[in-house]
Amino acid sequence: MAHVNEHYLKLAAGYLFPEIGRRVSSYAEAQPDADLIRLGIGDVTEPLAPALVAALRAACDEMGSAEGFRGYGPENGYDFLVDAIREHDYRERCVEIAADEIFVSDGSKQDSGNIQEILAPECRIAVTDPVYPVYVDTNVMAGRAGAPDDEGRYGGILYLPATEANGFFPDPPAQGAADVVYLCSPNNPTGSVASATALGRWVEWALASDALVVFDAAYAAFIQDPALPRSIYEIPGAERCAVEMRSFSKRAGFTGLRCAYTVIPKAVTGATSSGERIPLARLWNRRHATKFNAVPYPIQRAAEAVFSPEGRKQTREQVAFYMENARLLREGLGAAGFRVFGGEHAPYIWLEVPERGSSWAFFDRLLEGAQVVGTPGAGFGPAGEGYFRLSAFNSRARVEDAIHRITTNFG
Amino acid sequence: MAHVNEHYLKLAAGYLFPEIGRRVSSYAEAQPDADLIRLGIGDVTEPLAPALVAALRAACDEMGSAEGFRGYGPENGYDFLVDAIREHDYRERCVEIAADEIFVSDGSKQDSGNIQEILAPECRIAVTDPVYPVYVDTNVMAGRAGAPDDEGRYGGILYLPATEANGFFPDPPAQGAADVVYLCSPNNPTGSVASATALGRWVEWALASDALVVFDAAYAAFIQDPALPRSIYEIPGAERCAVEMRSFSKRAGFTGLRCAYTVIPKAVTGATSSGERIPLARLWNRRHATKFNAVPYPIQRAAEAVFSPEGRKQTREQVAFYMENARLLREGLGAAGFRVFGGEHAPYIWLEVPERGSSWAFFDRLLEGAQVVGTPGAGFGPAGEGYFRLSAFNSRARVEDAIHRITTNFG
Repeated sequence: MAHVNEHYLKLAAGYLFPEIGRRVSSYAEAQPDADLIRLGIGDVTEPLAPALVAALRAACDEMGSAEGFRGYGPENGYDFLVDAIREHDYRERCVEIAADEIFVSDGSKQDSGNIQEILAPECRIAVTDPVYPVYVDTNVMAGRAGAPDDEGRYGGILYLPATEANGFFPDPPAQGAADVVYLCSPNNPTGSVASATALGRWVEWALASDALVVFDAAYAAFIQDPALPRSIYEIPGAERCAVEMRSFSKRAGFTGLRCAYTVIPKAVTGATSSGERIPLARLWNRRHATKFNAVPYPIQRAAEAVFSPEGRKQTREQVAFYMENARLLREGLGAAGFRVFGGEHAPYIWLEVPERGSSWAFFDRLLEGAQVVGTPGAGFGPAGEGYFRLSAFNSRARVEDAIHRITTNFG
Repeated sequence: MAHVNEHYLKLAAGYLFPEIGRRVSSYAEAQPDADLIRLGIGDVTEPLAPALVAALRAACDEMGSAEGFRGYGPENGYDFLVDAIREHDYRERCVEIAADEIFVSDGSKQDSGNIQEILAPECRIAVTDPVYPVYVDTNVMAGRAGAPDDEGRYGGILYLPATEANGFFPDPPAQGAADVVYLCSPNNPTGSVASATALGRWVEWALASDALVVFDAAYAAFIQDPALPRSIYEIPGAERCAVEMRSFSKRAGFTGLRCAYTVIPKAVTGATSSGERIPLARLWNRRHATKFNAVPYPIQRAAEAVFSPEGRKQTREQVAFYMENARLLREGLGAAGFRVFGGEHAPYIWLEVPERGSSWAFFDRLLEGAQVVGTPGAGFGPAGEGYFRLSAFNSRARVEDAIHRITTNFG
């Protein structure tokens, strides 16, 4: 008899964003004339930069020609893209990453969800709380989390509260308290960012604990202060204890095109039960070769174009545009008396719900009262309760309208 | 301490095709002037059909415009593609599939590798032997297979030999002998195809055994006889026991573009330990929403164009071209005294190695003696020893040259 993986049944009703999508559609069906402003799912809204469109078109033409056609690509990405990543995302930050330490993929969501698969089932997982749901859900599916309590906390996961007191970026737990920790900076959902000092404490902890840091830097391009680390490999020692995920989704409008990459330095290893050290890059490479089949060639050409002079200029302008939206949200809602966090080095505003009330209730009130869609903090974890995430991804006019609607509705 | 998933260490040295790639490159380095003909990895060689290129270009332009830009797409595929699949791949074969039973993905390799994740670890797996390595390797990674013996057979997997005697498509084992079986028709690697009668025996077995059939129909478009089933859902009862994978890779030149889909009818369920029945589509949908992020929008538009009048005509001409290559290989090598199988409803020729000798030795002799690259049958499983796979994906001139080289070399 075919039995199912019952760990799936321990998951919360649905993945957060489809869940929000369902609530919004049912409201939209009930109120067909409602003019909704969507600041919920963090999805880019600006059209793809011209340099990237040109690269896509050229690659499509190649695919239609006998000389230019390409079938299966190298599983881990074409050299032209891998080399551009090494040069611009790392060498420019004085970090040297080898070509065979970079694994191009179709998304950081996929990579941060799949990385746990090469680790032992008994690994003890730590996450910050609130947290990007994928880190937790994929460990639930793998059976590491156990069952959730009434607040949605899984017994098998160590939650590290991200609070106003710790600047929404918690310090490490006791040495050896976890085997794997997921960190995200700039942070989704809180919009906070980790300093070199804060990351240094984590690298030190990981090395002392022989633990792995899964560092999600999908929003690195939104960091405004050049002194802040873009990559965890700017911290000495990280090359021995950390894997890093980067994405083109938000930095270059790729949410509908799908391209990202994961870095796994050769010195990052995990242990076997007999104590042998296995390079994680070897296992990830085997997984990639077996369960993945490369990113579409035209998409990789578009990603390469992100690093061209025009591509860099155009995508930086888009990032600046979204960050100006973030500033308007932060200042506009702050002036109206809301307590707001984040939005300075990340495209997310972390809003304190008035009186730290229910974030789902605030979601409903914002949806019904202001026709503005956000994301309830509780959806990111128990410690997210009392907070609300607003995304800076929208047109200027819609963002200004949203600020007006929220402030008048709650004024 | 972070421990690794030690099941990965039970895998054979490398995934078969990268392994062949390494051997070929080392030969090519040693013999830089060698003019290699690659009939190994089954990768398309004809340029992308004009109708598909046009669709790609139009979608790229949309992405560059304020009106046309699209961010995150629906995880399971855009309606325009899902509806085209329902209409052309199923309704035209008198099979009705609901929109929410179709899950568009970036590859059948991925889907056939990931499907086991929603099943219980204790499920007993059956595969035909020889077999597409992904089915076995992904179950090894998940811990269902145990350790391999000297012949590379995993103790935890039931192997069903595909032999000349059974037309390279084995019958079901004893009722209840397995919980999940992977079937592939038209078959990779043997090039055989299952009749409705043969599939009927499997559906009957699966229903009686409460087992799941994972049916890989990635090569369905290569079936020449309209009386042969293209989909397992042409067999009554399959909608209660089978999931099906289809791909655009070989039928429309998508190996470098990446688009496929999996069908999971609502009536296909798995049991919990308490006997509750869970629709597999519900679990797969949860997996897709959590670990996947949709196929790139331009790629889905290109896939939609495969079903347009021009797209169908152009891609059918490509399939016919490859099938003519297969006929030439089959007849050319047959006339030279080789025993050849397959190649009539599949783009693969299954060649019997002279005296049923070592298939890796034959690989080396073909590579060094004729500079022709094929795939050793042993790479697909123990019962593949003594056989050799030749792919029909190449230009006419190269295929004819390959036939000449092989026949003269072995004449």
